[in-house]
Amino acid sequence: MSQKPDQTTDLNLASWVESANAERCDFPIQNLPYGIFRRAGSGDAFRVGVAIGEMILDMQAGLAAGAFAGLDAESRAALGQPLLNDVMALDVSQRRALRAALSEALREGASEAAVLEPCLVPQAEAEYAMPAHVGDFSDFYSSLYHATNVGAQFRPNNPILPNFRYIPVAYDARASAVAVSGAPLVRPSGQLKFDAAEPVFAPCRMLDYEAELGIFLAAPKEGVTRVSMEEVEDSVFGLCVLNDWTARDIQRWEYQPLGPFLSKSFRTTLSPWVVSLDALQPFRAPFTRPEGEPALLPHLNRADLRSRGQIDVKLEVTLQTAQMRAAGEAPTVLSTSTLKDAYWTIWQLVVHQTSNGCPILPGDLLGSGTLSGPTENSLACLLEKSRAGKAPFTLPNGEPRTFLEDGDLVTIRGYCADGERYIGLGSAEGLVQPAIEA
Amino acid sequence: MSQKPDQTTDLNLASWVESANAERCDFPIQNLPYGIFRRAGSGDAFRVGVAIGEMILDMQAGLAAGAFAGLDAESRAALGQPLLNDVMALDVSQRRALRAALSEALREGASEAAVLEPCLVPQAEAEYAMPAHVGDFSDFYSSLYHATNVGAQFRPNNPILPNFRYIPVAYDARASAVAVSGAPLVRPSGQLKFDAAEPVFAPCRMLDYEAELGIFLAAPKEGVTRVSMEEVEDSVFGLCVLNDWTARDIQRWEYQPLGPFLSKSFRTTLSPWVVSLDALQPFRAPFTRPEGEPALLPHLNRADLRSRGQIDVKLEVTLQTAQMRAAGEAPTVLSTSTLKDAYWTIWQLVVHQTSNGCPILPGDLLGSGTLSGPTENSLACLLEKSRAGKAPFTLPNGEPRTFLEDGDLVTIRGYCADGERYIGLGSAEGLVQPAIEA
Repeated sequence: MSQKPDQTTDLNLASWVESANAERCDFPIQNLPYGIFRRAGSGDAFRVGVAIGEMILDMQAGLAAGAFAGLDAESRAALGQPLLNDVMALDVSQRRALRAALSEALREGASEAAVLEPCLVPQAEAEYAMPAHVGDFSDFYSSLYHATNVGAQFRPNNPILPNFRYIPVAYDARASAVAVSGAPLVRPSGQLKFDAAEPVFAPCRMLDYEAELGIFLAAPKEGVTRVSMEEVEDSVFGLCVLNDWTARDIQRWEYQPLGPFLSKSFRTTLSPWVVSLDALQPFRAPFTRPEGEPALLPHLNRADLRSRGQIDVKLEVTLQTAQMRAAGEAPTVLSTSTLKDAYWTIWQLVVHQTSNGCPILPGDLLGSGTLSGPTENSLACLLEKSRAGKAPFTLPNGEPRTFLEDGDLVTIRGYCADGERYIGLGSAEGLVQPAIEA
Repeated sequence: MSQKPDQTTDLNLASWVESANAERCDFPIQNLPYGIFRRAGSGDAFRVGVAIGEMILDMQAGLAAGAFAGLDAESRAALGQPLLNDVMALDVSQRRALRAALSEALREGASEAAVLEPCLVPQAEAEYAMPAHVGDFSDFYSSLYHATNVGAQFRPNNPILPNFRYIPVAYDARASAVAVSGAPLVRPSGQLKFDAAEPVFAPCRMLDYEAELGIFLAAPKEGVTRVSMEEVEDSVFGLCVLNDWTARDIQRWEYQPLGPFLSKSFRTTLSPWVVSLDALQPFRAPFTRPEGEPALLPHLNRADLRSRGQIDVKLEVTLQTAQMRAAGEAPTVLSTSTLKDAYWTIWQLVVHQTSNGCPILPGDLLGSGTLSGPTENSLACLLEKSRAGKAPFTLPNGEPRTFLEDGDLVTIRGYCADGERYIGLGSAEGLVQPAIEA
């Protein structure tokens, strides 16, 4: 069963939370993303929140105040946890009922407004924790543009390997390194091999970001070991922004033959908010592959894939250097790109992930891979933008850059926008801190 | 501080559990491995057990009966959990105190014998669960013999890449696929690319095992982000047997450029017992690298590495086919090899793992990599033994084998033996079941 738009994305809906009705607000009532938060400095337990306008609805407080009484006991219990895993474990009909209840309760004129108004916490006063316990994290390689640009750096004569066009290529990544936006990003050290005969152990000199989307999985259907293209949408809980920080010099020396390892496992940063698939439905887009590409194997295909297989989620990367910050200068945009340009859809990633019987659990995380597009200003990492450091570029204040310097603040913001609609995914932010001396 | 042999491995010790005193018993009082078990079919909660002879000491029952009153509250609480993570989180002095208490309580003439005797459960009546929740699992490539043999199959002209001699090469693997001995091993399906122009999605035809050791991590010292060679032994909880099942045909097509993924993530099997480092101390061995190898980078070296860096833990792989089982024939030995022959020590694996600041947690698991040795009968996977299928071999009953067939039972047994000493690690067992039809 494919997921269809429901009433909760109706453009005419407005909220009694006034800030949610502002133009190009990240969190209008059509969005309703989930996160884990508490009042900053309160020492309270972290809890489930739903972003609405500039506020967060504290679900624990809301339940305690008697709201959402129509939800089943399992859903209510899930909302009382300090992580979203139990919410992600709800089946798709429960997740829809929860979203419908939130939409109704936050709607202009809702009878619950009086009860819920005291349960709102300003986002400006919140701190966030990881949305879910990530049991496993796997990172894909779904942009042909990115793969071509990166492949050309690592293998000039052979950038795209033959399997790329048949397999959504991926590697298992490190769950313990995944953290929420704002977590320290300490420059890693590792073995670097430059022109000398022997490698050295030293702080990374080619630190990079990669702009990706994170895909949080819901529970697979009971008894299902392999998720099919027909059922896959029910197995996706929602999307967040993901920065797959990468040490290019560590990667270059370590990655053969078993793939990236320490070049990635020092940190991966997520946005605090997870936007449900239902909120993303209005932004479905055609899945188009360039002419001449091989046919999809049957298990990675389905009838409506071409017409609506993609989702147009945009990622914008900005950089603010220490010098810019000191001068009070705003961050500068390094790239804007979209999931829609990926060679593989997120459905194919999930189906591929389970096609060998690999067990998945609610809260498992998939990375889309770096979402570079076809143009210069859609290159979603510095390896591509600086041609592996060979082509330094200049920031608006005159500073040159190839890779990240200590003090650089990298922010990746996600959003969906068409002519009349706009929702935000929030952002994943990290400030580069100096390496720890050995 | 390096760990030194203590009184608990004294060869003169005997136990009041008679079966523990038998010659070449896996679990004499010098061993005392930890596992998670319950009486089979009882529906009881899983609990911590310590293997002794043919019995298991039920630690929950022992504590309830008033034994081990001398342990601190944190240790006692850890022993009451249904997983070993909290035991692994104890600091090294607490772990030593626990081992000393177990050794004293199970010793011939111990005053606790009367209290503990009713807390023994025969291993023959037990079922096992995963020893710990594995937060992250990474698998190494630490045998030069294995890497050479496998590299020759995948890259005939370039079997050993230049980084192998500097980096303990590894990849992140799938924690959700790790299961305890006896778990179903269903033949995976995946994309296979043979001589045709296009790959097909079909059941794996080149199913293999890999005989490895699993290394369970303890808690790193408070505030330590990079574990040093000097401190690493305190960060290792103990070893178990690990079968890194691999689909060679899936691997061959998928593995470039990001490494193995679905060829591994369908299942990894562990022995139920984790043998602590203290029990392994009598089997320490020199770390020897062939002549002409490059010097170790300083962060992967330490003064006593050459003299006692290795541990002589042996792995024996046996196979019993369906036909052998039907005829009542015993399993046949396919290989015997030892950790001692690895190019990298387990200390270097752990130090490498954290050298970039990668967070580790108690219960994280490292695989040693396939522990092949230099001789034909120490080849620890079928890819090597059958030369990637090009050289079928014949079992004692006349059956030919290249890779695993449905109905094959693979058992990997771990043990340490010198002239006078013997301890067992138990075994990791899996019966190959047919692929699930798509």
